[in-house]
Amino acid sequence: MFQLFPREEDFFVLFRKQAALVRESSDMLYQMMDSFDRLEERAKELKDLEHRADLVTHEIFERLNRTFITPLEREDIHALASNLDDVIDAIEAIGSRLLLFQVRNPTAEALRMAAILMECTRQIEQAVDNLKRMNNLMSFTIEINRLENESDAINRNVTADLFSGRHDVLDVLRWKEIYGRLEAAADKCEDVANAIESIVVKSR
Amino acid sequence: MFQLFPREEDFFVLFRKQAALVRESSDMLYQMMDSFDRLEERAKELKDLEHRADLVTHEIFERLNRTFITPLEREDIHALASNLDDVIDAIEAIGSRLLLFQVRNPTAEALRMAAILMECTRQIEQAVDNLKRMNNLMSFTIEINRLENESDAINRNVTADLFSGRHDVLDVLRWKEIYGRLEAAADKCEDVANAIESIVVKSR
Amino acid sequence: MFQLFPREEDFFVLFRKQAALVRESSDMLYQMMDSFDRLEERAKELKDLEHRADLVTHEIFERLNRTFITPLEREDIHALASNLDDVIDAIEAIGSRLLLFQVRNPTAEALRMAAILMECTRQIEQAVDNLKRMNNLMSFTIEINRLENESDAINRNVTADLFSGRHDVLDVLRWKEIYGRLEAAADKCEDVANAIESIVVKSR
Repeated sequence: MFQLFPREEDFFVLFRKQAALVRESSDMLYQMMDSFDRLEERAKELKDLEHRADLVTHEIFERLNRTFITPLEREDIHALASNLDDVIDAIEAIGSRLLLFQVRNPTAEALRMAAILMECTRQIEQAVDNLKRMNNLMSFTIEINRLENESDAINRNVTADLFSGRHDVLDVLRWKEIYGRLEAAADKCEDVANAIESIVVKSR
Repeated sequence: MFQLFPREEDFFVLFRKQAALVRESSDMLYQMMDSFDRLEERAKELKDLEHRADLVTHEIFERLNRTFITPLEREDIHALASNLDDVIDAIEAIGSRLLLFQVRNPTAEALRMAAILMECTRQIEQAVDNLKRMNNLMSFTIEINRLENESDAINRNVTADLFSGRHDVLDVLRWKEIYGRLEAAADKCEDVANAIESIVVKSR
Repeated sequence: MFQLFPREEDFFVLFRKQAALVRESSDMLYQMMDSFDRLEERAKELKDLEHRADLVTHEIFERLNRTFITPLEREDIHALASNLDDVIDAIEAIGSRLLLFQVRNPTAEALRMAAILMECTRQIEQAVDNLKRMNNLMSFTIEINRLENESDAINRNVTADLFSGRHDVLDVLRWKEIYGRLEAAADKCEDVANAIESIVVKSR
C-alpha cells in the first residue's frame, strides 16, 4: 500500500492532466457563450469535465497519502491541486448559470472576459508543463496578473453601466452575478499562479 | 511562562471544544429557522456561542505562543483553529441576518441548506475527535464534499428562481444574501476538511 | 545574480514601504469620501498608489527568488507581501467605484467604515515596524479584530436598512457593493494580522 520511493513523474503527469482539463473547460465556456446554442447540453459537458477533474484531484490526494517522499513539498502539491480544481469549479458554475438564469444572449463584455479566462488557462497549462524543469516563471506570473487586471477593469465598467438605470433590475442582478463570477474565475487563476510561484520560491 | 515539554492533550481538547461549539451553532441556526420564533433571543444566543468560541480560539493561539514543541505543525494548529472559528462566524452572521432583514418565514430550501450545514458540522466534530488517532479521514472528506455540492446545487436552483420575475425585488436581495451565506458556510466547512486533510497528509 | 548571505534589512525595509503605502491609501480613501470632490483625480491618485505598491511587492518577490537564506520563512515573506498588496487593491477598488457608480454623496456609515479602515492600516504599519523585534503582537491582533467586528456590525445594520424598502433599488445595489467592499477591506487587514501572527507563532 505504501510506497517507499517516489515516482516523481506521477505527480507531474497528474498536474498536467488537471491543467489540460482546466484549459478545456475555459474553451468550452467560451464556445458556449460565443455560439449561445444547446445551452443545456453544453452545461452538461462542463459538468462532465468538472467531474473528470475531481477524479484527477482525488487521485493526487490519494497518491499523496500513499507516498513517503514527494518531489515537491506535500503542502504545495495539495495547494496546487486544490487551486487547479477551484478554477474548473468556478468555470462550471458560470456555464450552469448561463443556462439557469435564462439570460437572452451574452454581452460583448462577458465574451471578452471568457476570452481572458481562456488565455489565463493557456498560461497555466504552459506553466504546469514547465513546473518540473522550474524554468523562469516570472513572465507567466506577470502575464496572469495583467490578464486578471484586464478582467477586473471590464467588470468595474460594466457594473457601473448595470447601475446606470438603463437596464431591467433582474437583468442587472443576473449579469452582475455572471460578470462577478467571470472575474472571480480569473482571480482563481491568479491563485494557481501564486501556488506555482510559491513552489518556485521554495526551490531556490 | 514558556513550556519546554508539550502537553499534547491540551490542543486536542481545545479543538474538540471548538468543534462542539461549531456543531451547537449549526443546531441552533436550524432550530431558529425551523421554529422561526423568538428571533432576537436566538440571534443573541448565537452571538454568545460565537463569543465563547472566540475565547477558545484565543486560548489555542496563546498556548501556541507559550509552547516550544507542538504535537502538530504550528501552522496547521493555527489554520485548523482559524478555520473552525470561521465556520461559527459564518453561522452567526446568518442568524443575525434572519433577524435584521425581517424575512417573513424561511423557505424549504433555506431549511434544507441549514440541515446540510448541521450534517457538515457533525462530520467535522467526528473528524476532530479522530484527529489524534489519525484514522482514515478519506470518507469524511468525501462526505463533506458531497454535502457542499448539494448545498451548492440548491443555491443555484433557488437563485434561478429568485431571478425568474416572480418575486418582490427586495425579497430577491434578502434571500440571495441568505442563501449565499448558507452556501458559503458549507464552503467554510470544506476549508476545515482541507485543513484536517493537510494535517493527515503531512503525518504520512 | 544569487546572493549567498541574506541582507536581512532589505525585506523589513520593503515591508515597511508596503505598509506605508497601505496606510496612505486608506488616508486618501477617507479624504475622498469626506470631501467628496475631485473624484476622478482622487481615484487616479489611488490607482497610482496601488501601482507603486505593486512595484514594491514585485521587488520583494524577485529578491526572494535571488536570496538563499531569508530572515523569515520564504512562504511567510510571500504571504505577508501578498496580503499587504491585497489591502491596497481592495482600497483602490472602493475609490474607483465611488467614481464609477455615480453615488451622490457618501453616507455617515460609509465614512465611519473608511475611518475604521484608516485605523486598521495604522495598526498594521505599527506591527510591521515592530516585526523585526518581534515585540508582543497580541494587542495588535486583538485591536484589528475589534475594528473588523465594528465594521462588520455597521455593514449588517446598514444592509438591513438598505433592504427596508425606503431606498431606490439601484441605490440599494450601489451601496450594498460599497459597504460590502469596505467590510471586505477590513477583512483583508485581518488577513495581514493573521500573516503577522503566523510569523510570530513560528518564531517561538
